[in-house]
Amino acid sequence: MSSKPVILVIGAGAGIGLHVAKRFVAGGYHACLVRRSAAAAAMPFDSYAIDVTQPKALEDLVHQIEQDVGPIQCAVYNLGAQIGNRSLEETTLKQFELGWKLGTLGLFRLSKSLLPRMADRGSGTLLVTSSTAAVRGNPGQHSHAAAMGGRRMLCQSLRAEYASRGVHVAHVVVDGAVYAPDTLGKMIGQDKLEELNHAGRLMDPVAIAETYWHVAHQPVSARTFELDLRTQKDVAWWNSSHL
Amino acid sequence: MSSKPVILVIGAGAGIGLHVAKRFVAGGYHACLVRRSAAAAAMPFDSYAIDVTQPKALEDLVHQIEQDVGPIQCAVYNLGAQIGNRSLEETTLKQFELGWKLGTLGLFRLSKSLLPRMADRGSGTLLVTSSTAAVRGNPGQHSHAAAMGGRRMLCQSLRAEYASRGVHVAHVVVDGAVYAPDTLGKMIGQDKLEELNHAGRLMDPVAIAETYWHVAHQPVSARTFELDLRTQKDVAWWNSSHL
Amino acid sequence: MSSKPVILVIGAGAGIGLHVAKRFVAGGYHACLVRRSAAAAAMPFDSYAIDVTQPKALEDLVHQIEQDVGPIQCAVYNLGAQIGNRSLEETTLKQFELGWKLGTLGLFRLSKSLLPRMADRGSGTLLVTSSTAAVRGNPGQHSHAAAMGGRRMLCQSLRAEYASRGVHVAHVVVDGAVYAPDTLGKMIGQDKLEELNHAGRLMDPVAIAETYWHVAHQPVSARTFELDLRTQKDVAWWNSSHL
Amino acid sequence: MSSKPVILVIGAGAGIGLHVAKRFVAGGYHACLVRRSAAAAAMPFDSYAIDVTQPKALEDLVHQIEQDVGPIQCAVYNLGAQIGNRSLEETTLKQFELGWKLGTLGLFRLSKSLLPRMADRGSGTLLVTSSTAAVRGNPGQHSHAAAMGGRRMLCQSLRAEYASRGVHVAHVVVDGAVYAPDTLGKMIGQDKLEELNHAGRLMDPVAIAETYWHVAHQPVSARTFELDLRTQKDVAWWNSSHL
Repeated sequence: MSSKPVILVIGAGAGIGLHVAKRFVAGGYHACLVRRSAAAAAMPFDSYAIDVTQPKALEDLVHQIEQDVGPIQCAVYNLGAQIGNRSLEETTLKQFELGWKLGTLGLFRLSKSLLPRMADRGSGTLLVTSSTAAVRGNPGQHSHAAAMGGRRMLCQSLRAEYASRGVHVAHVVVDGAVYAPDTLGKMIGQDKLEELNHAGRLMDPVAIAETYWHVAHQPVSARTFELDLRTQKDVAWWNSSHL
Repeated sequence: MSSKPVILVIGAGAGIGLHVAKRFVAGGYHACLVRRSAAAAAMPFDSYAIDVTQPKALEDLVHQIEQDVGPIQCAVYNLGAQIGNRSLEETTLKQFELGWKLGTLGLFRLSKSLLPRMADRGSGTLLVTSSTAAVRGNPGQHSHAAAMGGRRMLCQSLRAEYASRGVHVAHVVVDGAVYAPDTLGKMIGQDKLEELNHAGRLMDPVAIAETYWHVAHQPVSARTFELDLRTQKDVAWWNSSHL
Repeated sequence: MSSKPVILVIGAGAGIGLHVAKRFVAGGYHACLVRRSAAAAAMPFDSYAIDVTQPKALEDLVHQIEQDVGPIQCAVYNLGAQIGNRSLEETTLKQFELGWKLGTLGLFRLSKSLLPRMADRGSGTLLVTSSTAAVRGNPGQHSHAAAMGGRRMLCQSLRAEYASRGVHVAHVVVDGAVYAPDTLGKMIGQDKLEELNHAGRLMDPVAIAETYWHVAHQPVSARTFELDLRTQKDVAWWNSSHL
Repeated sequence: MSSKPVILVIGAGAGIGLHVAKRFVAGGYHACLVRRSAAAAAMPFDSYAIDVTQPKALEDLVHQIEQDVGPIQCAVYNLGAQIGNRSLEETTLKQFELGWKLGTLGLFRLSKSLLPRMADRGSGTLLVTSSTAAVRGNPGQHSHAAAMGGRRMLCQSLRAEYASRGVHVAHVVVDGAVYAPDTLGKMIGQDKLEELNHAGRLMDPVAIAETYWHVAHQPVSARTFELDLRTQKDVAWWNSSHL
């Protein structure tokens, strides 16, 4: 058992998830990370390489952590469901289902396992990383937008049912690309990544993590459910079409 | 083969779906209805009692109708995913998945089968019945809100990809209860149903059907993607909380 | 006094306002139009060349029409406040104030004069033409967006207070340019106007008027507060920025 | 001249404005406050008792502070336009105009005076306190909703034009009542105020100020334009109407 408050981060590659974990560790938390692969040795985290789409995987994880490490004070649901732009015809049923499993169902399963525990303790925070696709659907985004639109409405339902019982749910609209060499970098190439970053068009996950930390520690009398984040240089999602 | 334009209505009990079908038949359409049970004899519709959650059921239906009856000019996706208010703890994984299958996946499957055909013809309309849960999540609505939030964002993606190819997608936010003896009536009792109706609190499916007809026949130069509908007596979903 | 139902259209150049008036006249209404200049002789309308920004102008007009012509069954507030793109520094206080007077205050004054009368009669419709600037603010749109954002929220307040008393308020988001030779044509040139129209990028005011007619005649049990309108070829305002 | 960064707070009674000023002073800022009455002696602020609705009042103030105190690094527009619930018939033209002057025009005038200066320096923050009326109009809120709806769209236009030039604009939706003895307390009585506060239904301005501080200091790569704030115990504005 840890004597520190526990944070569980679901989806912790090298972008937002990892840096949120680091920020909370710096702030005195014990961090448990769910990642695709086992963690590098030097990281001050507990790592769990589970497949969250498997039945009972998330449920068992929550149970195990609460029993072995301590009560989860903060959970971050950070699994993406972006598969790039695919036309409707190119989007398979399997992709659409996987988008939902990662984007919506996983959050439901985590919440069902964790929020009643938090409510019993009268305290806890669920931070949900979301994206522009949660508030508008673009061409080629059928799977992603359906998954994220479902995620956002689920977050509202969760907040509506659990806020008065002490659970803080927040939905963060990340409106732009994040500087992440191991995901975005692999997709567009490291040169392009650095070029975009140099132009101020990529979001720094360290900065994002600072806002997660702030929202997670807002006192009960003034809490945020939804906020957006983008770089100073970027156009907001609602701008830039014709007048 | 029918010489008339064809309308396919998915989800046609005795409420919106049935009355939309009637309105389009009155307007000269040939109507194909997907209903849970076989249709009553006297109805001027083709009825199909398929289980839309089964693999290939919707896909085969679209193929069959296009081949045997004629090109589908208008499709109405009218399947609900409302299971009444259930707390997070009472909402099962199975219910959550069924909500998604009826609320989101079925629309994706219908669209994937039908919209490319409409785009090839440069013409066609997809009308999607939706609900308040598509724009806000209430307590007890975890399954419904997730399904409808996904549905709305999917509709935006579909419109974004297919509008310029001639397909009209519209998302109708039905913000209130509909006068439907065989569904709502069975749920709350016929006396309560009539009482609410007498007070002007229930929406008349005949009136709703008229608006579906209007939207389906807007000329290309002025088309509606989203509109809301409620009774004159009802409070809109965004009102009525504290100031 | 007219034996017909009366429609009052505020802002009736040659675009939406004029065609809405024509559609309602075709449907049996007596039309009263407020235009900048006196009407052409051959039009079957009463024309009023008042300056709506003058104190009591709208109030006196409503009183006069109700007394001389008949109870106003439907009012259309169609005054624009678009002054083209101007940077914050180029936007004068005078322009900003005029934008508010035309965009927001005029609607308040019309409503204050007319809605209590409609409520006393238990019937009446107020249709408000609005624009994309009511739902998002673009660069260079400081005056227009402030005016239209105020207009939209005012419409919601009006609906909230008057719907249960029989008054139908609807807010129409016209998301695109309208084919209007005497306004848009003069601004961008007739050649450019025809070119855009040929490409399907301009909205036909006749088609828009048909939707106004439909919304104005929805029965009490299924009424629309807000809907959007754009051409089939156009991108919706929420699309087209980065993913 | 001050060697510290300067914050200008417009509308600083004893609620949000005052506590934001205190938080920034604690963080090393020099604070200039615009208040209705001259400040109490012991406060570590410069106080200005100007009438912001007077022509050139805000413009002169910005000029004076920039010349005498130093470049304004952060401005907080915190003027309310709430006059309580008044029916349309009870809302006078004068009230409606005052609502606009405080709610919308004042922000435009402040922005026009200040944002070009900030853009020239490539840095600066404008925090705008807003309310639920900016996102939905309730009965009795005609003046307030029109003013706040205009304010929100203006903020979007300002962000759209100035973000890429280094100016951070943020719109804070304060969705609930704030613990403020000298305004809300006087309106509802101190006993009622304490009762609501004890029940966790009032927002603590100290907590709100902490979030303002956070948003004002987000690095350029991850900035928030809009966020909401409410107490843990409160229902969000979009909830609580019928399903």
